[in-house]
Amino acid sequence: MDFESLKGFRDFYPGEMQARRRVLNQVRETAHHYGFQEIGAPSLEPMELYEVKSGEEIVEETFSFEDRGGRHVTLTPELTPSLVRMYVAREQELAKPVKWFSVPKLWRYEQPQSGRLREFVQPNFDVLGVEGVEADAELISFADTMLRNLGLDDEYVFRVSHRGVVQGVVEELGLEGEQAQRVYREVDKSERFGREEFRERLREAGLDDDEVENLVSLTRLRGFDELSSVKDYASNRRTREAVQELEGLRDALEGYGVLDTCTFDPSIVRGLDYYTGVVFECFDVEGDLRAIFGGGRYDDLVEEFGGTPTPAVGFGVGDATLELLLRRAGEWPSEDVELDYYVAVIGDVRETAVRVADNLRREGHRVDIEMRGRSFTGQLEHADALGADKTVVVGERDLSDDVLTVKDMESGDQRQVDVEEYL
Amino acid sequence: MDFESLKGFRDFYPGEMQARRRVLNQVRETAHHYGFQEIGAPSLEPMELYEVKSGEEIVEETFSFEDRGGRHVTLTPELTPSLVRMYVAREQELAKPVKWFSVPKLWRYEQPQSGRLREFVQPNFDVLGVEGVEADAELISFADTMLRNLGLDDEYVFRVSHRGVVQGVVEELGLEGEQAQRVYREVDKSERFGREEFRERLREAGLDDDEVENLVSLTRLRGFDELSSVKDYASNRRTREAVQELEGLRDALEGYGVLDTCTFDPSIVRGLDYYTGVVFECFDVEGDLRAIFGGGRYDDLVEEFGGTPTPAVGFGVGDATLELLLRRAGEWPSEDVELDYYVAVIGDVRETAVRVADNLRREGHRVDIEMRGRSFTGQLEHADALGADKTVVVGERDLSDDVLTVKDMESGDQRQVDVEEYL
Repeated sequence: MDFESLKGFRDFYPGEMQARRRVLNQVRETAHHYGFQEIGAPSLEPMELYEVKSGEEIVEETFSFEDRGGRHVTLTPELTPSLVRMYVAREQELAKPVKWFSVPKLWRYEQPQSGRLREFVQPNFDVLGVEGVEADAELISFADTMLRNLGLDDEYVFRVSHRGVVQGVVEELGLEGEQAQRVYREVDKSERFGREEFRERLREAGLDDDEVENLVSLTRLRGFDELSSVKDYASNRRTREAVQELEGLRDALEGYGVLDTCTFDPSIVRGLDYYTGVVFECFDVEGDLRAIFGGGRYDDLVEEFGGTPTPAVGFGVGDATLELLLRRAGEWPSEDVELDYYVAVIGDVRETAVRVADNLRREGHRVDIEMRGRSFTGQLEHADALGADKTVVVGERDLSDDVLTVKDMESGDQRQVDVEEYL
Repeated sequence: MDFESLKGFRDFYPGEMQARRRVLNQVRETAHHYGFQEIGAPSLEPMELYEVKSGEEIVEETFSFEDRGGRHVTLTPELTPSLVRMYVAREQELAKPVKWFSVPKLWRYEQPQSGRLREFVQPNFDVLGVEGVEADAELISFADTMLRNLGLDDEYVFRVSHRGVVQGVVEELGLEGEQAQRVYREVDKSERFGREEFRERLREAGLDDDEVENLVSLTRLRGFDELSSVKDYASNRRTREAVQELEGLRDALEGYGVLDTCTFDPSIVRGLDYYTGVVFECFDVEGDLRAIFGGGRYDDLVEEFGGTPTPAVGFGVGDATLELLLRRAGEWPSEDVELDYYVAVIGDVRETAVRVADNLRREGHRVDIEMRGRSFTGQLEHADALGADKTVVVGERDLSDDVLTVKDMESGDQRQVDVEEYL
C-alpha cells in the first residue's frame, strides 16, 4: 500500500516544523506581553454553532458530518463562535474585559491555492467587554508589534473601515435585505476583481448606473483624510456614527504610534455576517497576497449566543499567508534543524557513551547518540547529516587512556578531553 | 441560542491552558534534549490509512465521514500511520535513524470517562531505522527523564514485555488466526478484569482449563528475574527470541540507569495490531489509573506502507492520564494566570499610559492596560482579579508633577517614581 495525504493538508517535516514553531512561539510571546491569556477550544463543534451568524459561505465550506451518535458536527472553520460560547458559559466569573488568544488548527473545504489551504493554523486574538475604540487600537497595536517582532517592518499596512460606512450608503440607496447583503459581499471581494467586473457585479445585484458609480467611487477613497468625504455619499445617522468612531480610532492609533501603518479603506467590510462595526485587514504593501489577516467588531454575538450584551473585537492570522509574507521579506526562520552534540560509539563502550549523553542532556544540550553500531565514518556522516555542532567520540582505545575526542563539525578541529569532564 | 460543547471535548480556560502549556513545553524541551525532531501531520487522513494495520477496535472508534469530494476520511485516532506515511514519502532523503516527535490532537469516539476523552492531545515519540534494543532503551530512558522533568519520581513504573512471549505460548497451545487474536486482546485487557473474569473470557475464547491456567499463570509473572521462567510455558523459537531480546533490553536499560523503574510483565501486549516485538506501558505505581502511556515495536509497518523494510519503535502519552497522575503527585503546574503589570489610567492621560505600557512590553513584561475608563477602585480590582504583580497608576495629577505611582499588589506598598523611568 502507498498512501498520500489529503489535498490541501500539509505534512511538516522537522526543518519546516522548527521554523513554524519559532514563528508561533514569537506570536505567543508577543500576545503574553500584551496581556492576552491563552485558551483552547475543541476542534469539533455542533454544526448549529455556525448556522446562526457565521454566514452561508462559511457553512458551505465546512468539513461537517453526522457522528456515530447522530449529531451534526463540524471541524471548526473559525474560532470566534467557540470562543463566544466559552465566554458565555463563564461570563459571571470572568474578570472583564477578557483578553484571550488561541492558536487553533482550523479547516475549510475550499479550493487549495497559494496561501489558502483546507487545514491551517490561525492564531486568534480577542477582546471582550470594551465598547470603546481603545480595544480596537490595542488590538491593531498588538498586531503591529507582533509583525515587527517577526522581523517585518514596512511590508504591511492595516486597512481600516467600519461596516456602517458602506451600510449607511447602501441604506441611502434604499437597498435592504438580501440585496443589501449581496452588495456587501461584492464590496468585500471588489479588490479581487478588476474595476469593470466590480461594476458588472453591482449591476447584476440590481443597482442602476448612478448607484454603481456611487459605490465604486466610495470604495476608492483611501486614507483617514478622506473620512470627511464619506458624508458626500450618505449623511444618515449610521454613516455619521461610523465616521465618528473611525475618527476616534484614528486618534487612538496615533496615541499608540501606529497610525503610519494604518489607512482608511471603505472597501473593507469582511465576509463574516456577525461583524458589526470597525473592521480591518492587514495587507502586504505589494498587495498581491490575500489579506494576511483580518478582524473586527462583533458586538452582537455574545447576546446572540445567550449571554449578556457584550461588545467584542478580534482578529485571526492565517499561517499560510503569514508564511508567504515572511518568506518574501527574508524573515522566515532557518529550517536547519539544530543538534548540539552527537555521541559516537566506537567499540564496546556503550554504557560510557550513554552516560556522556545523559550528562550533556542534563546540562540542557540537544544530544543524539549512535544506535546502529556503524563504522566511525558512518557515524560522522550521520552527525553531519543531523547538523550536529560537535561530535563526542567515545572509543575503546581513547577510554583506556581515560580520554574522549570532541570534534567540532564545522571547523573539523578535534581535541582530546579528560573523560571525567563528561561524566 | 445557548450552546454546549460536545461530550468528551474540553474547553480550556486561561489557567488550565497555562498549566497544560507548561507541561507540554517541558515535554518538548526534554524531547529536544534527546535529539528528537518535531514534525506535524494532518488531523484528517484517508480512512484506509487505518484499515490496513491499526485493528478493528481503532477503526470502529473513529470520527470518520465522507467529505464534500466523496472521500472516506477520518479525524486521526493515532499518529503512527501518518508518521509512517510521512517517513515512506521521504525515506530516500532522510538521515537514518529518524527520531521524530509530535504533539497532535487525536480523536476517538469512545465512552468518555476519567482519563479518557473523545478529543485528546497525545505527544508521540518514535525512532525509525534501528533494529537493536538500543532504540527501545533510548525511548524508555527518554520517557523516564520526561516524567522526572515534570516533577515525578517514584510514582510510575514501566512494564515491559515482547509480543513474542504470549505469541509463542499461544502457538505452543496450537491456537491461530482469529482465536489467537482474541486471546491477545483478552490478555491485553486482563488487568481491567478480576482474575476470574479473565479465566471466563479465555474459556469463552475456546481454551480448555489447562490452557487457561497456563496463560493465567504466565501473565502473572513479574520482574526481569522471571524471564528465565518463560521457557516453562513455551520453548519454541518465537519465545526464545523474545526472551533473548528482553534480556538485551534489560542490560541496555541498566546501562541507562533506568532498570529500577522497569519490570518484565508478560500481560503487556498492547491493543494495536501492528505491534511486532518489544511492547511497554507506563503505569502509576498505585495502579488504579489506566496506563499513562504505552508503545512498542512496529517493525513491519513501513514495509506495509510501501517503504523499504525499516524497524521502528515508538510510544504516545495521553494528556488526560498524565494530568491525573501529575495532579495526584502535586506536580500539576499552577493555574494562576500571570501578569507583571497593570497600567491604570486616571483622567485624560491615555496617551502617556499607552507609552508606559508599550515600554514595559518592550522590556519583555506581561502588561495589560485599562480600556474601560473605570474608577480608580474599579481598575485596582480588575488588576487584582488578573493577578497583576504591580499596578502602574498613570494619573493626571501625578503627571503634572512628572511622577507615576507604582503599587505592589501583594504587599499593597506603593511608591512614586519619575515618569521618565517609564517612558
